[in-house]
Amino acid sequence: MADFTVLFFPGGRQVVIGEGESLINAMIKANIPIIASCGGEGVCSRCKVMVKEGRVKSLSTGRLTVEEQKQGYVLACRSFPESHLVIEVPEESRLGEHQVMLGESGDNWKRPADAPGDTCLCTGGLGVPLFRKLRLVLPEPDINDSEDDLGRLVRVIRKETGIKHLQPSLDVLRTLPQVLRRSGWKVTVSLAGGGGYHAVEIIEVKPGHADGQYYGLAVDIGTTTVVAQLIDLGNGRTVGMKGAYNRQAVFGDDVISRIIQASEGGLQGLQKAVVDTINDLVEELTAEQRIKPADIGAVVCAGNTAMTHMFLGIDPTYIRLEPYTPAANSIPAVQAGYAGLKIHPRALIQCLPGIGSYVGGDITAGVLITGMAFSGDLTLFIDIGTNGEIVLGNQEWLISCACSAGPAFEGGGLRYGMRAMQGAIEHIKIACGGADVEYKTVGGAPPVGICGSGLIECVAGLYRAGIIDRGGNFVAAGSTPRLRESAEGMEFVLSWSGESGRREDITISEAEIKNLLRSKAAVYAGIRCMLQAVGLPVEAIDRVIIAGGFGQYISIRDAIDIGMLPDVPVEKYSYIGNSSLKGARAVLLSGRAWEEIEEIIHKMTYLELSAGSAFMDEFVSALFIPHTDLNLFPSARS
Amino acid sequence: MADFTVLFFPGGRQVVIGEGESLINAMIKANIPIIASCGGEGVCSRCKVMVKEGRVKSLSTGRLTVEEQKQGYVLACRSFPESHLVIEVPEESRLGEHQVMLGESGDNWKRPADAPGDTCLCTGGLGVPLFRKLRLVLPEPDINDSEDDLGRLVRVIRKETGIKHLQPSLDVLRTLPQVLRRSGWKVTVSLAGGGGYHAVEIIEVKPGHADGQYYGLAVDIGTTTVVAQLIDLGNGRTVGMKGAYNRQAVFGDDVISRIIQASEGGLQGLQKAVVDTINDLVEELTAEQRIKPADIGAVVCAGNTAMTHMFLGIDPTYIRLEPYTPAANSIPAVQAGYAGLKIHPRALIQCLPGIGSYVGGDITAGVLITGMAFSGDLTLFIDIGTNGEIVLGNQEWLISCACSAGPAFEGGGLRYGMRAMQGAIEHIKIACGGADVEYKTVGGAPPVGICGSGLIECVAGLYRAGIIDRGGNFVAAGSTPRLRESAEGMEFVLSWSGESGRREDITISEAEIKNLLRSKAAVYAGIRCMLQAVGLPVEAIDRVIIAGGFGQYISIRDAIDIGMLPDVPVEKYSYIGNSSLKGARAVLLSGRAWEEIEEIIHKMTYLELSAGSAFMDEFVSALFIPHTDLNLFPSARS
Repeated sequence: MADFTVLFFPGGRQVVIGEGESLINAMIKANIPIIASCGGEGVCSRCKVMVKEGRVKSLSTGRLTVEEQKQGYVLACRSFPESHLVIEVPEESRLGEHQVMLGESGDNWKRPADAPGDTCLCTGGLGVPLFRKLRLVLPEPDINDSEDDLGRLVRVIRKETGIKHLQPSLDVLRTLPQVLRRSGWKVTVSLAGGGGYHAVEIIEVKPGHADGQYYGLAVDIGTTTVVAQLIDLGNGRTVGMKGAYNRQAVFGDDVISRIIQASEGGLQGLQKAVVDTINDLVEELTAEQRIKPADIGAVVCAGNTAMTHMFLGIDPTYIRLEPYTPAANSIPAVQAGYAGLKIHPRALIQCLPGIGSYVGGDITAGVLITGMAFSGDLTLFIDIGTNGEIVLGNQEWLISCACSAGPAFEGGGLRYGMRAMQGAIEHIKIACGGADVEYKTVGGAPPVGICGSGLIECVAGLYRAGIIDRGGNFVAAGSTPRLRESAEGMEFVLSWSGESGRREDITISEAEIKNLLRSKAAVYAGIRCMLQAVGLPVEAIDRVIIAGGFGQYISIRDAIDIGMLPDVPVEKYSYIGNSSLKGARAVLLSGRAWEEIEEIIHKMTYLELSAGSAFMDEFVSALFIPHTDLNLFPSARS
Repeated sequence: MADFTVLFFPGGRQVVIGEGESLINAMIKANIPIIASCGGEGVCSRCKVMVKEGRVKSLSTGRLTVEEQKQGYVLACRSFPESHLVIEVPEESRLGEHQVMLGESGDNWKRPADAPGDTCLCTGGLGVPLFRKLRLVLPEPDINDSEDDLGRLVRVIRKETGIKHLQPSLDVLRTLPQVLRRSGWKVTVSLAGGGGYHAVEIIEVKPGHADGQYYGLAVDIGTTTVVAQLIDLGNGRTVGMKGAYNRQAVFGDDVISRIIQASEGGLQGLQKAVVDTINDLVEELTAEQRIKPADIGAVVCAGNTAMTHMFLGIDPTYIRLEPYTPAANSIPAVQAGYAGLKIHPRALIQCLPGIGSYVGGDITAGVLITGMAFSGDLTLFIDIGTNGEIVLGNQEWLISCACSAGPAFEGGGLRYGMRAMQGAIEHIKIACGGADVEYKTVGGAPPVGICGSGLIECVAGLYRAGIIDRGGNFVAAGSTPRLRESAEGMEFVLSWSGESGRREDITISEAEIKNLLRSKAAVYAGIRCMLQAVGLPVEAIDRVIIAGGFGQYISIRDAIDIGMLPDVPVEKYSYIGNSSLKGARAVLLSGRAWEEIEEIIHKMTYLELSAGSAFMDEFVSALFIPHTDLNLFPSARS
């Protein structure tokens, strides 16, 4: 089989692929982030690229217009080289680079006053970090004190730290006698583990006191993005933060596609993709801070259950099959070398435990950070992505559920839907009658699509402007040229092609609006089911905390108005940012936080919404704007 | 450099070596056990071989007689090939094969009635073995019981065993979902760890109930020999036992030579040698029993501190340098794969802890097995090899010491000294005046030398026959032709060349007798120092327990008569066999035994004999037969 070079623009990266390899393989090799929602099945038609030079053989998919084909567009996942190639990757097919929401907003958010441990979580003041270096001077042995080297070392560490169970790595022990003596009994000792661990491990003993800096990594492993924070564990300061798209994206946009791929032999590839993603972040962070990767001695990861499984190479197959049992909710800490992370090979990697297939470590992290598990206030915690994970409770009880919101809030399933990237319409106002539309895009760029926060405002706006009725049907035909017939039925023009960053109008169809109503109904139905399970009314909620990237930009008022979020005073709402990352950071810094995590998973129950008919009843009632039962939304504007 | 083949007889093994490699290297390659007491320094002249065909270049050492050189003898460690060779390895240079004392005698020995836990140590009835397989049937998950797979497994194991802390190996977790479902939730689970371990590890989950046999290995890692017992941990039965010479012998006979070699870059080679020795035993044992090596899931090793260090590749340098501090007395359990043992790669390897450089895990094992640490009787435990390790104590206190007895009892330092192998004089009677000598050899073969037990009887006999005085000087010149002048002074003929298995007389010289008196004096002085340290007289001793291969054959009466062992009634003496191996076996079978080991190392103190002058005073007083102070030996015969 022949090999061909493929040169990509923009960027100018060049790779070599075989005759039988698809262009999407070439893009993976070239490390070009690509949108391939369907996982390379030729269905989503998001991996459009343009052949500028050379010939490709493209399998027919019927997904490209005649116009597009004329322009030289092909689907990367369905095209194979027949010569050396020059390929252009158009803006809309690229995963925007350096646009990952790092989630630092919400950082000034505070735990409720009655929840303990704020200091511990922020400063490591209570408990200890998961990784430490100690600068020690050991008493030299003599004939009256000839204790073994390890015993002597442990004695001094114990005196310094109070740690009860300490054990050395065998590698450390093998050279310990020389290290101690050559350094004149003055050494720097690296300890991995802390509160809640059976034993703290001595992972390194180095001569002298020079090499005393030590770091940890908090990682939020999201389905879409991976964010890593480099933390100086000596003082608790975050010294760097980087985000990147999860390289698993080439295996499919959503978790379910990836689980299917994993089940069909792709697990190792998925594992490698996310490990590579994290390793790249480590490389960038350590280069930027001029530290050695080996000075990172602990990693705490928070992710949903499927992400955690795939990161460690654990079979996730049954997460998506009834009765939805993961391999493990709590996974023991593993060594970095074993997991493939390029930091200290004996660094501890702890994935935060979840409580089920659809309530993972990211949610546990969030519950930790809100302090709700230790507060008297009844708190509702909502993290909305493709799945809406919702936790309700207080210091006495916690109940959680996951409702399948669908990909609408992340731009999936809509022709012009997109994530909150450059050019996404994130805010929109529609005047009465619908003729005037004002919007704001991410980065102020010409609009190329609409993201979740924009969609909520769009539906609220269309309803208030009288364009759609409570069921999401267009009811204002003829009132504005923006509302028009298309091949697939009625659609509303959000942005004309003249002002758009595309060469076409950006629209939303009735089918898409109804899709969005299903998403919002799923979230609200989940909340109602939980309230009913504990026999409490909406009014009992003291606080509502929104987490996740999507939550940052949404208009709470509009979300209440369309009946997605419960109608409690807006002042009770707050936004917590990337609580998954913050929870990981807290555990990294404080053994006490780990103990709280253990309490949380012990305390939290899971409400399986697919069991029984309650959820379906609530869901159907919630398909209207704001709801079938208007009494539930006394303050909703219409 | 040219390569040459070397063919060895007897045995017919052939290997290829380079021009610059010594014949001893060829013997290591051919796996021919060889005596190289000096570690290949050309000093001990024990590695004599005969060149039958071909030419070698031999470095001059002055250690071979003209006669020997004429016959074609060379020292293997100082000879290099100049052509293809045929080499004969004479009997006296070979380490006898299949003659390793397995130490099963003494097996009917019982712990004292007032020491607890006899049942636990013998049957595993209390506590649990370090490795187990459980045949389990798990309840299938459904929508009302969708606990994660690991949680489900742990719940069932916990119900079955009561184990609190359980954690899976990541390898197990990775495939757990498939294994559980493909087997219809009927699995065999392997657990490594037990009482005293922070957490028991789930090292394997296999489908079905067929593969339920499980084994452990108890290993006595001796300087000279390594003995391994294969134990069916399901019923506590020893199903096989094998011994072999420690392949480290090629690095030198004694521990100190080997520590020096380890310090000078030879540690990896020493580690490999002993690991290979154990792996060979594993191969033989598993082949014989037709079991898979992977069914061995735990190993407990007992050895002296230096042996334990070298087995795990830990630097032993400072064991032999003042103040004699080992790297570690207690070494955490490691995985078999990491240690290089070819059994289940995640099997647990636990080396029994010692309390110092010269009181190692073999002695802790012995103290465990005697039950002395939990008995009201004042017990004296003696394990004599090159070092005499002695422990004195009862349930309230334990004191230990190590006295350098020298190699005499193992046949070292004497021209005709040897270990208790085929042809060794092990018992000897010398009639008054010395003309008549009766002896008994190991295996009834013609005598080729004399071993430790024979030497004790020889010295006692020579003294009682009036041939030597209390100081070990020959005083009966002319009384018998057996007593004669030689180039190196007076010597006594034990066996004439006519009856000998050699072509020469077997003799003992005055210098050799004095050497032996120094050895016995060291042992007795050690015992006296310990008694004095605790302020007790010899008569306070309730029991004396002798351990080790050497102890099996000695005449207690003669050992008392020459003043080596304390003069208490012979009925108080007992022989315990290979207590190191027995202790390892007990820990393998019972978590309770491990807890006892931990109590023992906590309780036992070490008396450093080289600190102060007490030992030297006692030593000098003990250089006479039986002692300077005859009151200490009221019953000694003369």
